[in-house]
Order: sequence, then structure tokens, then C-alpha cells
Amino acid sequence: MSKPFRIAIAGLGTVGAGVVKLIQQNGSLLASRAGRPLDIVAVCARDWKRDRGVKLDSYQWMDQPEKLLDVPGVDAVVELIGGSEGPARALVEKALGRGISVVTANKALLAHHGYELAALAESKNAALRYEGAVAAGIPIIKSLREGFSANRINAVYGILNGTCNYILTEMRVTGRDFADVLADAQKKGYAEADPTFDVDGIDAAHKLSILSALAFGIKPDYEALTVQGISRVSAQDIFHAQELGYRIKLLGITRRLDDTIVQSVEPCLVPEDRPISAVEGVYNAVFVESDFAGIGLSVGRGAGAGPTASAVVADLVDLARGLDLPTFGIPAQALKSAARGNAGDIVKRFYVHLIVLDQPGVLADTSAILRDHNVSLEAVMQRGRDPGNPVSIVLTTHKTRQADIQAAIARIEALAAIAAPPCLMRIEDF
Amino acid sequence: MSKPFRIAIAGLGTVGAGVVKLIQQNGSLLASRAGRPLDIVAVCARDWKRDRGVKLDSYQWMDQPEKLLDVPGVDAVVELIGGSEGPARALVEKALGRGISVVTANKALLAHHGYELAALAESKNAALRYEGAVAAGIPIIKSLREGFSANRINAVYGILNGTCNYILTEMRVTGRDFADVLADAQKKGYAEADPTFDVDGIDAAHKLSILSALAFGIKPDYEALTVQGISRVSAQDIFHAQELGYRIKLLGITRRLDDTIVQSVEPCLVPEDRPISAVEGVYNAVFVESDFAGIGLSVGRGAGAGPTASAVVADLVDLARGLDLPTFGIPAQALKSAARGNAGDIVKRFYVHLIVLDQPGVLADTSAILRDHNVSLEAVMQRGRDPGNPVSIVLTTHKTRQADIQAAIARIEALAAIAAPPCLMRIEDF
Repeated sequence: MSKPFRIAIAGLGTVGAGVVKLIQQNGSLLASRAGRPLDIVAVCARDWKRDRGVKLDSYQWMDQPEKLLDVPGVDAVVELIGGSEGPARALVEKALGRGISVVTANKALLAHHGYELAALAESKNAALRYEGAVAAGIPIIKSLREGFSANRINAVYGILNGTCNYILTEMRVTGRDFADVLADAQKKGYAEADPTFDVDGIDAAHKLSILSALAFGIKPDYEALTVQGISRVSAQDIFHAQELGYRIKLLGITRRLDDTIVQSVEPCLVPEDRPISAVEGVYNAVFVESDFAGIGLSVGRGAGAGPTASAVVADLVDLARGLDLPTFGIPAQALKSAARGNAGDIVKRFYVHLIVLDQPGVLADTSAILRDHNVSLEAVMQRGRDPGNPVSIVLTTHKTRQADIQAAIARIEALAAIAAPPCLMRIEDF
Repeated sequence: MSKPFRIAIAGLGTVGAGVVKLIQQNGSLLASRAGRPLDIVAVCARDWKRDRGVKLDSYQWMDQPEKLLDVPGVDAVVELIGGSEGPARALVEKALGRGISVVTANKALLAHHGYELAALAESKNAALRYEGAVAAGIPIIKSLREGFSANRINAVYGILNGTCNYILTEMRVTGRDFADVLADAQKKGYAEADPTFDVDGIDAAHKLSILSALAFGIKPDYEALTVQGISRVSAQDIFHAQELGYRIKLLGITRRLDDTIVQSVEPCLVPEDRPISAVEGVYNAVFVESDFAGIGLSVGRGAGAGPTASAVVADLVDLARGLDLPTFGIPAQALKSAARGNAGDIVKRFYVHLIVLDQPGVLADTSAILRDHNVSLEAVMQRGRDPGNPVSIVLTTHKTRQADIQAAIARIEALAAIAAPPCLMRIEDF
């Protein structure tokens, strides 16, 4: 058996402790698969006294992440500090700059600085790995980089944030509102005290920009994304969607549109009889649509100590086995700056929920505007009657250019009878 | 860019032609990902005149597969002849024996001779790759060998045969019988003229024994499998299962049971609200259950020219990139001979369908036998009444040792009032 693969870990939160636990618990299995032992040699965390449920006293303790790089013979640094700037970025840059490989679960870092870090890693002949950054329980980074390497990929889409999927599932099952379910999710530890990154779609957007880079051979381009979270999805929308045979999911979607790439994170309707609708709670799901393999779907836990540790350590085993590739599958210098597509050109069916005052002529006005913008209706559903008071009108359209329906909805929103901001969501019937 | 990776292809059926088409169509993409061009240098097929929809005239034509090995500088031979013996086996053995890497989609060959071939490959420092052998549109071989490499795997299960899944789906949707749907599937090209390998579960069993080897680090042991096909699943069973909230799927399941591995292929009931139930038609699905990643599911096309070519060429790209590992993830000499578990010790819920003469005392006799064998009932459903004539009784049990329910059913089958062989299926509610 070859010499041990020496690991230094920065950050001992839930995931960091999980990585330590995994390496301790499955040590002999890892050694047999990697052909050499995986040895943790040093760790760094702010508080060295806190009980993390794992034995840490045989490792060197550092009080500064960068001191890990001075431990002799470190083969890889595991960065689990988090954040796109500050100590995480500094550590990764310094490690790669010194030719030390990095394994990280830091999606924000990759989304914002992925290209520069990839170029740095390659120039120093170091590896930069991040399987734990996206849908941890699903080896989707490896699948895109290697498993589907024979294919021209047309689209990657899915449920990339477990917190949002948990909230949407709970809203559907219990009929409760967003704010109510969010508060409950925070109590249960499924949502952070500050839930912004999750519920506003930012976390999913970080992940999607990484998947885009791998799928299309482009530089991660976080700014190219249209991002909308789930805070405006109402219990009513979920109910109406269900009546129509759909569920609402927060989807990250990146796809080719002519010679451009269109990337978005937003709540969409999906048919309830498809596998993606059965992906509930904290689970993630990723679809890959490609020219030869067709459509493939992977489902697994998106986050948490166990799945993220599994992904981080799989990267370490790969490196210990001597498997390495450029960060995004092709050399950084070959990554293109993708032409940003126009989401307005997407042609799909749409769901519209209007809350209108129940008075004569509203439907006629609405219909006229839709007609003016070339939107033709598939179904109209008006619930109840309550003259003079707000009632719901739910519409689904035939295939329509997104820009057309958006323009129509902007005009409809200005009508006097519209009692609340309209809700517009795409129907993604893959 | 490095020198081309030179490929020789044996067998130009649907999949072989698909591989040629993919390499021609996506050539520049493959070169950018592999860091070098993938060049087909020679091919071998029985009939060189047949139109296969791809240009073949720039390749050397061989009339014997083994002559491909004499083409100078061949880096890998692609074996798409098929069959566990004969020319396919001879070609693979000779190639590996001469240190030439092999990529194959031949599940029978791997299931029956995987261990010997793995040992041969390693002794000659050649690679043996087979992503296309199992659930082609899903990179499940790579996921088990690398993506989940940090985990102790507890079970792998799923829908491994698209023909059977298509037939079961059609039976459910149309209410028609097995023989009828099979004939139709044969007309449509979804089932072979001789459907034995598919409908009797043999194809799924080949695949499962490969997945077992990877998941548990054991020698493929085809003989260890209990195999039952779908020809005895009736339209009535599908109907009853649906009434109870289940669908019937042919599942390959390999799992740890104490210190043993239990492997089986057989029709089972799965709850209709779970993702696996939404996997219909020719799609395959594979679950991996492991200690840190939890439960992961992958869904994709199981076979066909496109998905299989995608898998075969992904293996070639890996080899061209210099990525290689032992055939089953760990050195052949480290593969264990797994202790074969006793399927009788599996404890699950069961579905039983009895066709009995509608006469007094049948249910009492049946219940007494079940009680004698420690089987307790969850639900009993008797449909219609027709004194003196056969009627259906459908039972579901609470958790029961498989050996106990089997013994009970054997006794029940001997009762005078039993009008047809009972149907017993496990309920797999993962």
C-alpha cells in the first residue's frame, strides 16, 4: 500500500465534523478503495474546546486556516469555512497558489470565483474539487464532468435547495402559508435563522451556475442568472396548481437557447405524475438532458452532515487514487464566456393567478390584453362568486413566449379591478 | 493536444453504429474533454455491406474480431458482440492478455467471468470498463465505483430491465394480460423475438450481480441470485396492487443481511406515491442506500443505441483522460467471495393473491395456516361472491419472515379449495 494521503481540514462545523467522523468510521474501507490510507493530519476551527462528537486530539490544531498549509506533506486542504470572500477565499487561493489541492463544499466561492480559481489550480498543477457544493447526496458534479462526458448537454434543471423544497412540500401537505411553515422549519433546523440565501433562491443560483459551467464548458457566470425565490408563492397557488394536476417546485434551470445559455431559478409548476413531483421534503433532484443519453434524473439528499461528508470524502478518495481533471472538466483557458440568453424568448405554457374584484368586464378586459399579446388560453378557472369583493381567477396558457405573457401581465396588473399583484409561473412539463 | 486515443470496435449492431455516430458527431467536444482526439481506427462486423446509417469507409475493416488487436497502436477495443462465451469472451481475454484495454457493454460476460477478467486486466495493466452494461443512460457504475466511494453501501436496488418495465406499465395502463402486451412489445421492437432473457429476469440478474460486486467489493456471483421474471404477473395482480395503492415492478435487489449478501430479481409491490412508481415504460431506476449519503436514486434510459453509446464513449473518454481504476473499484485480489445470504430471513410485508372456490371455510383454513406460520394480516380483500366458483382473495401481511410466508403459502396451495397457484410478492416500501 502506498503512502498515506494527508488531509488538513479548515472548519469543523456540522459538515467538518461529519468529514472527520466519516474518515474515522470508514477508514479501512477508504484505504482499500483509495489504495492508501486517508490520514487527517491537522484541523482548524475557531473553538477547539467545543464537543463535536468526534475525537480530534490526535490531529494538529491550528488557530489560523492558512497555518494548515505549513503542515509538512499535506496533500489536500478541505475548506469548510464557507462564504465567497474572507478567510475561505484566502485559504483556497493560498493553497492552490502553493500547489496544494483543495476540496471544498463552498458553492458561493465557486459561483463567484470559479474561473479564476480553476485557472490558478491548473497553473500550479493542483486540483480543485467541489462535489459537496451541489446536491451533496447526488454525485452530480462527477456525472456531468465524467459520466455524461460523451454528450452535448442541452439542459440541466432541478430542485437544488432542500429548505425551499421542504417548505413547499409542507405548504402543500398542510395548506399553511409560507411565513408559517418557514417559522416551523426554522424551529426544526431545516431553515437558517436568516433564511434569505435559501428562500430567495440565492443558494440554488450559486449551485446552478456551477452546473452550467460543467454542462456547457463555460465560465461560471452568477450575474447571468434570473433569480426569484419562493416567498411570494401562496398557499392558494399551491392549492390551484394541485387542482390543475401540478405541484410547485423551486427549479434551477440552465439551458441552451439558440447560441445562448439561459439560466434561471424560480418557482415553476411541474405535472404531479412525473418523478420530480414525488421528490419532496429536503431532497434534491437534478435532470440532465443530453443528445445521446437522453433525459437522466438523480435524486438524493441535498445537504446535511452525512451527504456532504460523503461528497467531500469521495473527492478526497479520487485525489488519493490519482484521478484528476481540470476543475470544470476542460482546461480553464478553454472555458467560454457564454452569451447570456434572453429568458423572454423561452416558449412554454404558463400559470397565472389573478386576484380581481368580482365585477362585470374584468375577464373581458383581461382576455383582450392577453389576446393583444398573442397569449392563447388553455383553461380558465374562476372560483366562487362574491360581487364587489376579490376573487381568484386562475388561467393556464398554451405555449407562449415568456416576454409576451410578461408584457400582458404587466398591463393586466394596471387594471383597476386587480386587487393584488398577479402571480405568473412557468409550467415545466419535462 | 496529445496524440489521438485509438479505438477498435468489434460489433456494429445498433449499439456499435451508435458509438460510431456519437464519436463522429461529437468529435470536437470529446477531444476538448479528453484532451486528445478519439479516433476510430478499425472495425469488425460480419456484414460489411449493410447500411448502418454512418460512414465507415475511413476505418480498417476486419473480418475477425481478434484481428483488431493486430492494428498497430490500438489503445482500446470496444466489444459489442455480446454473449458470455464465444467470440466476445475470446476477444476480451486476448485483448486484456495483450495489455490492450477493453470497453464493453456485455453484462452476461461480466456477470459470469467478471472476476477472472478483472484479475487478468490488472495483471496486464489494462483497463476493463463496462458502464454500458448496466442502465446505460445512468452512470451508475461510475457512481458506485467513485461517486459513493466514501460510503459503506447497504443495498442497491431498482428497475434494471426496460422491457419488463415497459410491459408492466402497459399492463397497468391498458388492463391487458402479459402475453398480449408482450406480443405488442415485440412488434414495436421493445422486446426481442426470443424474450426469455428479459422477461425471465436473467438480464436484470446479470446487471445486479455486477452492481453487487461494485457495491460490496465482492466477486460477481451470478449463481447466488434468486431470479423470477414477470410472466406470472397477471392483469388481476396489477389491478389489485393498484387498489391497495401500489404498483408492480420487477426489482433487482442486493442487500446486506447480517454478514451475508442477499441478491434477488423478482416482481415486487412499491407504493404508488414514491418516485420509483413514476418510473414507467422503458426507463430504468437504481437506488443506492449507504451509510453517509443516505438514499440516492438515479433514473434514465436503460438501453438503446443512444444511451449505450453515451456510456461506452464515456468510458473511452475516461481512458483517454488517463483515469483508470481496478475493474470493480478495488484490486481483484481484494474482492471477497460473499457469503450467500438466506432470502428466507428477509423480513418485509407481503402481498398474497389467492384464487379460491367460493365455499364455506376457505378463509378460516387459510387464516389458520397463516397464524400457524406467524404471519399476521394487515388487510384482507375479497372481491365479489360466486358460490362454488373461483373468486379472488387478496391479502397483505404485516412484517413477516419470507421463509414463514413461503411455507404458509405452500400449505395453502395444497388446500382443496385453491383453484390456481397462489401469487406471493414482497412489498418493498423504500
